[in-house]
Amino acid sequence: MSKLTMEELVAYCKQTGFVYQGSEIYGGLANSWDYGPLGVELKNNIKKAWWKRFVQENPYNIGLDSAILMNKEVWVASGHVGGFSDPLIDCKECNTRYRADKLIEEFTNGKETGDNWENERLLKFIYDNNIVCPNCGKLNYTEIRKFNLMFKTNQGVIEDAKNTVYLRPETAQGIFVNFKNAQRTSRRKVPFGICQVGKSFRNEITPGNFIFRTREFEQMELEFFCKPGTEIEWFKYWKDYCAKFLKDLGLKDEDVHLRDHEKDELSFYSNATTDIEFRFPWGFGELWGIASRTNYDLTQHQNHSKANLEYVDPDDNSRYIPYVVEPSVGVERLLLSIMFSSYDKEKLENDEREVLRLHPFLAPYKVAVFPLIKKYHSDKALEVYNMLSKDLMVTYDDAGNIGKRYRRMDAIGTPFCVTIDDDSLNNNTVTVRFRDSMEQVVVNINELTNFISEKVKF
Amino acid sequence: MSKLTMEELVAYCKQTGFVYQGSEIYGGLANSWDYGPLGVELKNNIKKAWWKRFVQENPYNIGLDSAILMNKEVWVASGHVGGFSDPLIDCKECNTRYRADKLIEEFTNGKETGDNWENERLLKFIYDNNIVCPNCGKLNYTEIRKFNLMFKTNQGVIEDAKNTVYLRPETAQGIFVNFKNAQRTSRRKVPFGICQVGKSFRNEITPGNFIFRTREFEQMELEFFCKPGTEIEWFKYWKDYCAKFLKDLGLKDEDVHLRDHEKDELSFYSNATTDIEFRFPWGFGELWGIASRTNYDLTQHQNHSKANLEYVDPDDNSRYIPYVVEPSVGVERLLLSIMFSSYDKEKLENDEREVLRLHPFLAPYKVAVFPLIKKYHSDKALEVYNMLSKDLMVTYDDAGNIGKRYRRMDAIGTPFCVTIDDDSLNNNTVTVRFRDSMEQVVVNINELTNFISEKVKF
Repeated sequence: MSKLTMEELVAYCKQTGFVYQGSEIYGGLANSWDYGPLGVELKNNIKKAWWKRFVQENPYNIGLDSAILMNKEVWVASGHVGGFSDPLIDCKECNTRYRADKLIEEFTNGKETGDNWENERLLKFIYDNNIVCPNCGKLNYTEIRKFNLMFKTNQGVIEDAKNTVYLRPETAQGIFVNFKNAQRTSRRKVPFGICQVGKSFRNEITPGNFIFRTREFEQMELEFFCKPGTEIEWFKYWKDYCAKFLKDLGLKDEDVHLRDHEKDELSFYSNATTDIEFRFPWGFGELWGIASRTNYDLTQHQNHSKANLEYVDPDDNSRYIPYVVEPSVGVERLLLSIMFSSYDKEKLENDEREVLRLHPFLAPYKVAVFPLIKKYHSDKALEVYNMLSKDLMVTYDDAGNIGKRYRRMDAIGTPFCVTIDDDSLNNNTVTVRFRDSMEQVVVNINELTNFISEKVKF
Repeated sequence: MSKLTMEELVAYCKQTGFVYQGSEIYGGLANSWDYGPLGVELKNNIKKAWWKRFVQENPYNIGLDSAILMNKEVWVASGHVGGFSDPLIDCKECNTRYRADKLIEEFTNGKETGDNWENERLLKFIYDNNIVCPNCGKLNYTEIRKFNLMFKTNQGVIEDAKNTVYLRPETAQGIFVNFKNAQRTSRRKVPFGICQVGKSFRNEITPGNFIFRTREFEQMELEFFCKPGTEIEWFKYWKDYCAKFLKDLGLKDEDVHLRDHEKDELSFYSNATTDIEFRFPWGFGELWGIASRTNYDLTQHQNHSKANLEYVDPDDNSRYIPYVVEPSVGVERLLLSIMFSSYDKEKLENDEREVLRLHPFLAPYKVAVFPLIKKYHSDKALEVYNMLSKDLMVTYDDAGNIGKRYRRMDAIGTPFCVTIDDDSLNNNTVTVRFRDSMEQVVVNINELTNFISEKVKF
């Protein structure tokens, strides 16, 4: 369980330089967040860890980086123009706006999600169960309208419907439309997968919970293409692969929960879906969606674009549209899980410390360099700092006593602190202190880069 | 000089999997491009190289990642709402649309750029010099109108002016509005800099030249904050730093040219600006803009937001708004320069080869693993592949004779090829072949990861 409330985490992130409110000096922009000097490193390290596991080390997958702005027909084919909308409802008494499905979900404490319900069913449930407006307590709502979540803009000089383009609401479609190009140029055989990391945008009616649900967010998506009939086997492979990835990053078993979707909860094109959920302070919430999507997406694009998206199997000359398994996770949501999971307040013998137990690979700074006494040890310390910075993210701190500097580094997750003292000048050794165990060892400066590099691998 | 025309490069990029047309199966979206399995690796490696030099290794700088969507007042303060526009002109005879300044620049072969000219001056120059429509040859234009280059969208449910937000046209402003937060939380003293990599969007009237000028692009920007009076010294420091970075990446001296702006060419707030230009097939074009921007940006934000953006110097208690030096480079434009610079067609004794002489750090794949004979050597080859992939991007190729496989790897820039043969089974050694020299050496498999890792450092 997290030792922080959400309010405490937001304050901690701002104060340490992980996350600031977006456009803060202008009063912010609703629900937008900027990542400070520590946050950008953590975010980049999460993306690197994912790319390492899903592209570099996985024998099946390749990468891709498609544009955010795409031909709008992509979104007609994918169903987003017609169907990517939330059910909007207003209280007539106080004009507060809600997502009808979320009203139900909150009222039933998650027992009913209202996912994929028709407007009528949603409204009936609300009135049958007397779900009053959480703001004013009245039961007097407008009809439910569908609100499309795609951000619209115009490309080119003339603002008309012809020039409408959308900010992509997911990175997945950029993969589907490139299926043939990527397969052909990489000379891959099915089964294989295409990975992409990038920004997506959804004009959410009720964003919130800090960086849990934001209008602008970053996805890490894999679309895995396989032979029809093998998809459930691959679905299990990727479910295990994702769960192992989270465990390796340091999320605890008791905070992670796999929830298989019930039959009536599945999207009409899916024959299996699992959410990996994380225990946030408000309860379990979706972290990673893994869906077996059959051949729905490629078929839609084949029909709509008239391009042939069939794959010809070189082994038996059979032709088919590959089935797809899609594990999709948000970078910010994973970052939030990692922060809750890593933060600790620890009682020591005569003291207390804040410590962020990040996997060393994820830590913004791998190592901090301290001159014991500024006057005597700064030159050598800067020499060591410069040496280490060729291979590692390093920070330097010469303010206050060593104990204070340890506490500052504990609180931002720096796994190693290196102190330069007289022994460094005389014997070319330094004291390396470990964040988690607080143990100290003596290491020769010539060995230092390797000593730390080995310990920050993922 | 590049050995490729632009058309040849576009075809090469598509065929090898570096860059595809965006939304291709739907006939594309004007001037949008997707990065394939090789392109995404090269792009990521360019960003990593920049981050390593500008954040990790540089003692002055820290990183940041601000949101694309910002409070619209940011763009009022920065001058983008009022002034970020291009001079638009149409030929009345054939309705072709031009940027008036570009018409002049092309007509004069770059002697006049039309930068920052008023509409009247542009129009007068066009008529005085008889610059006819390049399409139909007539001299009959409309008036010049200003066209704002920011993409507009609406955030929230209601589409009205109150909800207008812009897609950021540059990453710089996200740094300026976070100046205080970043300085405070990192406890930095001036001089220091803030680095950011991210997407920006400009609704260009005449995008083009492949990925040279696109509406959606990625920037790598540094805003360096220094004491007034020291800015020209820092301006020189960063000019040299950027030029060295390009040289280290492998751009040739004869293809790179530093062009200092003349007094009358400078923006009104700048007291020094230099463009680092690269020799593209159509001539020298801007690659990296380095500008001394005085205290213009922070002053604008201080005045407009009413937030105090002054810095208090802890050494002498003086208060000032820091001056700013901004080196700003586009990822895609740098990638384009690197492709032109690296591509080579080389005559061999009895053969010819295509070779992409990328810096090993930039190469999509660091190493390719080949079993000499599929039947005998595949198991061992896969073992080596799996071992290497823990630390390096590796590819595997077992199709065709070894010579053919070398050629395929040369053409995509893979610096090392590793062949597994009987000696691998008997003595645990492999043959490593170098891309550029085509020399071969024998290396023990236990040493292989280190042997290659050492050679791909930047």
